[in-house]
This record gives sequence, C-alpha cells and structure tokens, in this order.
Amino acid sequence: MAEQEDIAGETIAAVSTPPGRGGIGIVRLSGPHALAISNALLALRNPLEHAMARFAEIRDPETGGKLDEAIATYFAKPRSYTGEDLVEIAAHGSPVVLDLLLRWALQQGARLARPGEFTERAFLSGRLDLTQAEAVRDLIDAQTLYQARTAAEQMGGAISRRIQPAKEKLVELISLLEAGIDFAEDDVDLTPDEEIGTRIDAVGAELAGLARSFERGRIVHSGLTLAIVGRPNVGKSSLFNRLVERERAIVTAIPGTTRDLVTERVSLGGIPLELVDTAGLRTTADEAEAMGIAKSREALADADIVLVVLEAGIPPSEEEAELLASLHGRRFLAVYNKIDLEDSSSGQGHAEEQSIRTSAATGAGIEALREALLNMVRTPGGESESGMLTNLRQHEAVKSALDALGDARAATANGTPHEMILLDLYSALRQLDSLTGETTADDILNRIFSTFCIGK
Amino acid sequence: MAEQEDIAGETIAAVSTPPGRGGIGIVRLSGPHALAISNALLALRNPLEHAMARFAEIRDPETGGKLDEAIATYFAKPRSYTGEDLVEIAAHGSPVVLDLLLRWALQQGARLARPGEFTERAFLSGRLDLTQAEAVRDLIDAQTLYQARTAAEQMGGAISRRIQPAKEKLVELISLLEAGIDFAEDDVDLTPDEEIGTRIDAVGAELAGLARSFERGRIVHSGLTLAIVGRPNVGKSSLFNRLVERERAIVTAIPGTTRDLVTERVSLGGIPLELVDTAGLRTTADEAEAMGIAKSREALADADIVLVVLEAGIPPSEEEAELLASLHGRRFLAVYNKIDLEDSSSGQGHAEEQSIRTSAATGAGIEALREALLNMVRTPGGESESGMLTNLRQHEAVKSALDALGDARAATANGTPHEMILLDLYSALRQLDSLTGETTADDILNRIFSTFCIGK
Repeated sequence: MAEQEDIAGETIAAVSTPPGRGGIGIVRLSGPHALAISNALLALRNPLEHAMARFAEIRDPETGGKLDEAIATYFAKPRSYTGEDLVEIAAHGSPVVLDLLLRWALQQGARLARPGEFTERAFLSGRLDLTQAEAVRDLIDAQTLYQARTAAEQMGGAISRRIQPAKEKLVELISLLEAGIDFAEDDVDLTPDEEIGTRIDAVGAELAGLARSFERGRIVHSGLTLAIVGRPNVGKSSLFNRLVERERAIVTAIPGTTRDLVTERVSLGGIPLELVDTAGLRTTADEAEAMGIAKSREALADADIVLVVLEAGIPPSEEEAELLASLHGRRFLAVYNKIDLEDSSSGQGHAEEQSIRTSAATGAGIEALREALLNMVRTPGGESESGMLTNLRQHEAVKSALDALGDARAATANGTPHEMILLDLYSALRQLDSLTGETTADDILNRIFSTFCIGK
Repeated sequence: MAEQEDIAGETIAAVSTPPGRGGIGIVRLSGPHALAISNALLALRNPLEHAMARFAEIRDPETGGKLDEAIATYFAKPRSYTGEDLVEIAAHGSPVVLDLLLRWALQQGARLARPGEFTERAFLSGRLDLTQAEAVRDLIDAQTLYQARTAAEQMGGAISRRIQPAKEKLVELISLLEAGIDFAEDDVDLTPDEEIGTRIDAVGAELAGLARSFERGRIVHSGLTLAIVGRPNVGKSSLFNRLVERERAIVTAIPGTTRDLVTERVSLGGIPLELVDTAGLRTTADEAEAMGIAKSREALADADIVLVVLEAGIPPSEEEAELLASLHGRRFLAVYNKIDLEDSSSGQGHAEEQSIRTSAATGAGIEALREALLNMVRTPGGESESGMLTNLRQHEAVKSALDALGDARAATANGTPHEMILLDLYSALRQLDSLTGETTADDILNRIFSTFCIGK
C-alpha cells in the first residue's frame, strides 16, 4: 500500500515473549532503522543477513562489558512478518536484561511499540487482511485447542475466502448497472429489475449464511456462562464441585452456605464454559445472604445456560415451578439431585424431558449431566464450519451489508432508478471491504490492535 | 567429554520462553533426534540448515490442517548452546499451541526436559564450566541490573579466570613434590620444606581473597534484610512507607496498629533489600498483638541490618537503651523520628554517631536515611570485584581447598613425608576443580540444575 512509508517511518521495539523469567526472551525491532539500531546494540562476529541466525554479545551500554549472549536474526523487507526490516534478538529470558536492551534500543531511536503494532504493520503492508490479523490475537488468547484451531483457520484466510463469491457477484452486478447507465444513450438494454432482484437475493443468501455463523463463532470465541440455581441446600455447590472436578466451593449441611458467586472456568467440547455457583434462592433476614441472593438473580438473568437444581423425590415447590416456567424459551436443564437419599417408594416421577437425575454425593448421574451439557454447548448454531464470524465487528459489517442489500432489494421492487440502487450496492460492498480491512477507518484499526498484547 | 554420548542419547524438549501469552513462544529441542522430530512436526518450504531461520507451518497432528506459522532455526552439533543438535521453533506465544507442539514432540520420541537440562548439557559437553552455568540461572533470576551485571561477568568465566593463577601454582607445587618422590633415588634434591611452605602460603593467600569475596557476592546475589523495630507508635510503619515509597503498611495514631510482619522489597544501590515493618515492642495483654511482638523479635534476630526507631526529643526508655545495647557488633542504625513534633527547647541531644533524625510525616531526613542505608549496604565486603563467589556451594569449595592447604602447611612444619603432604594438596586441587565442575559428583549436578527454570 502506498501509505506504508509514512506510517512505518518510525522503528518500533518491544519484548515479544511473555513477561516473566524463562530460558529465552526476545526483543523485536521493526522499521527502517531496525538493522542500524541492532548493530548498535550488539557485538556481532558476522554481519546480520536475511534469515541468518547470528551469535551476538549484548554490550552493557554503561560499562561496555558483556551483559548477555544472544542469537540475532534479521529479516529483510519485505520478507518479514511486518513486511518491514525486522530484527529479533533472542537473549536469556531475564526481565532485567530485556528491559535494559529495550531501553537502549529506544535511546538509539526506536519507539516503544503499541500493543499489536507489529501485526498492524503486517496488515498495513498487505501481508494479512483484517480478519487474519484478528485471528493472530485470537490464536494467542485461545484457551482451548478448539478455539486455537478456529483461530488458525481464520488466520489462514477462511473468512476472506468465504466472502469472495458473494463479493464477486456483487461487483458483477454493480458493473452491469454501471454499464447500463454509462451506455444508456447507446441503446444498451437496461438489466431487467427482476434479474437485479434475483442477483441481489443470491448475494444476500450467501451473506445471511455467513451472518448466521456468528451464533456459533461467538460461542467458540467467547465461551458460555452456565449458572447453577435453585433453593438452598439442594446441592448446588456439590454439583458445581463435581463439574469443576475439585473442592472449589465450600459445602456444608447448613442451608445458605454460599453467598458470593463462585465461578470457575472449564472446557466442554473445546468451548470455555464459565460455571457460576449461586446462593440458594429464598426469603431471608440475613443481610449478607440477601445480597448473595440478589447476585444469584443477576447471574440467572445473564447466563447462557441455566442449570436448575431440585431435590429428587420431592415435588417442586411453587417457587421452583415458577422458576422453571420463567426459563421458557431459554436454554436450561433441570437436575434432580440427591437421588441417593430419595425414598424409593416415591418413584422417579419428575424425570421430564429436559432433566437429569444425579447424586453429587456419590457421583451418580454426573457423567450423564456432563453429556447433556455437552449437547447444549454443541447445538447452538449447529456444527462448526469453515470461515465462521467470531467477533462483533465482523458480524456488524456483514449485517450492515445485508441491510444495504435489503434496501437495494426494496428499491428494485419500487422501480427506483438504477443510480439509486447502485448507492445501496456500493454501501454493501464497502461493508464487505471493511470486514477484511480493505477500507477501514483509522479509529477502528486503533480499536482492533489495542486489544493485542505488546510485542505482537 | 567422553560421557556426553551416553547422557545425551535422549532428545529433550521444552517451552523455553516464559509461561503465559505473548507475541512469540519457543519450543526447543536438543539431542540426536532434534532434527528428525522437528521435520515431523513442521511443514517446511526449505530444509533446516545450520543457523538458517526457516519459515514453517505447524501442522495439526489430528486434523492435518495448519495450526500456526513459525520460524524454525536449527543449530548443528557442536555449534549450539547445548553442543548437541538443537532446534528452536518460534511460534506464536499461544499456550494452547505451544502445549500441543510440545506434546507432539514427545509423541515423536522426545522427552520432557528437566529444569536446567539444556544448560546441563552445555556443561556436560564442555561449553560452560559449572560457575558459568550457575551464572546463567542467576542472570535469568536477577532482580536488579547490578545483579545481572555480576551474573554476566560470572557467565563470562570471571571465577574460573580468578582461580586460574592459584590453581597453576598449586599444580606446579604438586609437580615439584611428585618429581622429588619419583626421582628420589636419582639424587634429585628434595624441595626444602621452607620453600614448600612459602608456595602453599602463596596459593592460600589468593584463595583467601576469593573466599572473602563471598561476603560481598552473597549480598549481591541474595540481597539483605532490614528490620524496622522500636516501641509502639514511634512511626515505624510511616518510615517503612516512606522507604518503599507507597502506603504499603497501615498507619494509625493508635499504638499497636501493626501486628503481622509487613514486608516489601526495594532495590538500594542495585542490592535487593527486603524491608520488614514490625509490631512495636511492649508488654501487652492483647493476644494477637503479643503474637505480633514475638514475630518482631524473630525478625530482629534474623535481619542483616536493624533500624531502631526512637522518638526525637524523648530520652530513650530503659527498654530502648537495652535494645540498642543488644545490637552491639551488629549492623544497625538509630533513627530519631517525629522531629517535626520535637520540643525545640529539648535540643538535639540524642544525635549519636550512628543515628539519623527524620520526620516520616513531613519527609524531612528521609534522603539522609536512605543515604545512610546505602552506605551500610555498600560497605560489607568492600567494593565489588571481578570474579566474586556468589553462592554457598562455591564458597564451600574454596573453604575446603583452604582447609586442605592448612593441613598441608601444618604437615610441612612437622617434617611430614612429602607423600602425605601431596594428599592434602591433591585434595585442595580437587576442591578447586569441583568449583568449576571439572570433577563434580552427579548428585551435586542434579541439585544445581534443578534450581533452573524449565526450557533453559
């Protein structure tokens, strides 16, 4: 891109390895002076050359003595991650040494890189599109292998590939209408409105599928929240501990033990699931418990999935029946717990469709519960697919494109002049371009790259 | 060394960058199969070659898809850190991806590296001596630049260089005595006992200087502890907060506010200084306070430096006078605090030599206090010197060598046969060899390298 030179006039530097101590720590430099600055920082036996790992001594800027030994690798523009001259200095992972090296690089004229700025430069130099850049961040942030795989696919350009056919159809349609306008006086036939409508629908159908993928992609990216609710002493905390597989929440025989929300993250089928144990719902005079119950209701309202715990063998109370009724239309599961204490004569009368019978005390039914939860986590948005939208920005861009197509479709039906329809189609195209970053405002770029870690 | 092949038969692998998320994360492989395993993990456009940074795709072992992009660098035996075949795979710093990569390497026949095992192999292949290997760990662990510089110097072989002259003299003396014994029948004159004694003293003098360097080296390596003690409400916590430059300890006007020991680490002249704020010393009926006071006395006993806080303008109580007297021979400083509240008519009668006058409330005298502490931190062991001993193992080795020399010296004075003197001299030589690791038992090696981080 033409503006690269302006943006990349400065050379940026950062520690690119995670913070803390380790065998190896890397200071990374990118920009026109990366090579000159590195040469000032290092005592090299052989000069830096593209893609050659060179042994180097890091000189102490104050004493002139050797401070550390390092391997320095230079990648010449444009054959680097950023597309600029780039040097990676791999020293020992000593925060003190890396800090000194970085400060020295700044003294030599480098500027501290902003979070994500190396990847931003890769984007600006055309090496990555915007969805690929976002995927780099998502890959680093991945909590499960499934998330990492989804991010890796997106990093490989899955979204860009997926929108390509719709975009081509849209550009074709725009060309057709432009031609009709340009050559109107030359007796070129105008495209019939019916054909325009059909073509718009074809583009819209593809984009609608893409927009729908966000339902699944959002879950893969951000995970789900599951609240465990019910009246006091039905075994919510015990079930919670079973699901997180350790004694995380305090369990006593005294109703009202849990007050604060207790949360723990587990991975279920590759999806991060935030489990929330809550205070038992009841009327109480205890102030701390009452505050806990208010928190329980909030957690209940916010959860993606609700697990209602009831006591096996005891008919639901009026409050419990109300709670279950209030969950109509939401994803929930009724769990009849304490089956080990159940009076066998009472039968198993409450095994409705969306229910599981467990004993948190003995572990009975826990596997079935886990299986049922796994199905609930898997179902929404159906199976994973290639090129899912995984964040709100992407979803908003596709939705806006669909809105513009909808306007164009309506205009077509009204016999609006093609000049006006074209405006809507161009608007849809711009939205698709913003998805991959072909046209994106600076403030949006800043917002995206500020969510990266430093040094990437 | 000859035994390298046996030890290095296995290929080891570990994540060598600090734990956590970052732009870059590295999996390191060392050993005879490092290259073959790396080729199995990576899809490479060009084959791995010594010291060439190669672009590689990390294949997902389960799906076969691309999981990440990486730069892989191969260092061929013996031109690597470990002296063995070594490959560094620099992927994105995603714990999920690095974990998968590592597990896959293990499936391909690598073994998880023990802490410090890469450096242990560098030692075993003769690339580093033992003090240099220890310095690698100290450099990574350094908390101040001064510590890092000391470690870097040791990593460069400062200790080994420093003992070299003593060792040469010792070897010379041993050769002399051996020659005397071997050729005794050929009329070679025996070295006079007086000359032997002089030569032993020369070696001993050099080693004694080295042993003394530990006083300073230990402080540089481990830092110092400073306890702030005194009766209640003299402003110990306020002074503590001034020294750590934040409101770390809770301060109230009520005597006996501090109970638990409050600690904070600061750097003073490059030396890590652990400040300990303590409960005021007095007789109390309050159980928690009494427990706190017991802790104060322990901290007082353990501290390298004691800061006794007194109230300016008030003559020391009997208990305070006793406390000051009990510190005779230890490093301590008397601080007369609250000079802002002092009755000016009372004069400044308590400004003894080892005392500072401060007001924690206004900040007056704090700089002077800091300066006085800095002098106390600097003094012990005098100035820094090249090749200081920095840990107990090194000190023990030199002390044992000195002990053996002492035995030899005593034997010389007694006219003991040279065969017997030689036994002591050989013992001293063995101790010096163990310092640099030329002869070191396996269990000692294990103890040293187990204090490293994984991946180094």
